[in-house]
Amino acid sequence: MAFDIDPVLRRDCHLLGRFRYAHLLLNRHSTIPWFILVPETDETEVVLLPHDDQLELFHETSILGKFVKVTFNADKINLGAIGNVVRQMHVHVIGRFETDACWPGVVWGAPLATDEYGEDDLRRITRQLVDYFGEDFTPADQPG
Amino acid sequence: MAFDIDPVLRRDCHLLGRFRYAHLLLNRHSTIPWFILVPETDETEVVLLPHDDQLELFHETSILGKFVKVTFNADKINLGAIGNVVRQMHVHVIGRFETDACWPGVVWGAPLATDEYGEDDLRRITRQLVDYFGEDFTPADQPG
Repeated sequence: MAFDIDPVLRRDCHLLGRFRYAHLLLNRHSTIPWFILVPETDETEVVLLPHDDQLELFHETSILGKFVKVTFNADKINLGAIGNVVRQMHVHVIGRFETDACWPGVVWGAPLATDEYGEDDLRRITRQLVDYFGEDFTPADQPG
Repeated sequence: MAFDIDPVLRRDCHLLGRFRYAHLLLNRHSTIPWFILVPETDETEVVLLPHDDQLELFHETSILGKFVKVTFNADKINLGAIGNVVRQMHVHVIGRFETDACWPGVVWGAPLATDEYGEDDLRRITRQLVDYFGEDFTPADQPG
């Protein structure tokens, strides 16, 4: 059966592509590099995923976190698997800056500026992902 | 050199004991089962830990999450590694309920009731940890 990314995630995020295990989204708010991994599963709890799937998800969380840290020169990486509102499993990997609007609070539930990425930004970030991850990352045909 | 748990974490939490890799704390607010893992490291980013240490930390996050899910019958497990305020590495494993005061928001930064655990509660939770984890968990001499 085809897997559909939750409509709230689709509304709030650009679909950038996918790793081997999870889809990669980018929150539309452009002032904070806020990535989201979405594995294809009906399970809602990360800790209840089958062992090998958990390892895959942790691995992609880790390599994505390192990418965000070095590419955006983030002061802190925030990781979160929450899912109180959107139950479809998704893991947040967020680059935070001591100068960003939410610092030192968390971004979840915080009011965020409406600045959005332009097409050039999305192309640049997709290129950075392809350069960094090589064949581990497959870009979407059209980031959207 | 002796490892000291950050004074803010000590102020906000009970020290329950330790797993093989990380210390286990429990936030003093008793209305939400909010556990915190603290590994002995100077690294502040989970994603920059050496590979084997990351696997250990992910493993303990996972088994602790399963424990919280089944023991407290939580509606949702919230996982987070944030560290914007307390830089010492720590991972949140929180049992959430659709009836709790913060739902569906996150607990971080939210105003929380001041209800604290009694000594009986701490003894019961420690006993549940020992029963569930066996020799993988070493209780503190005195939860405090």
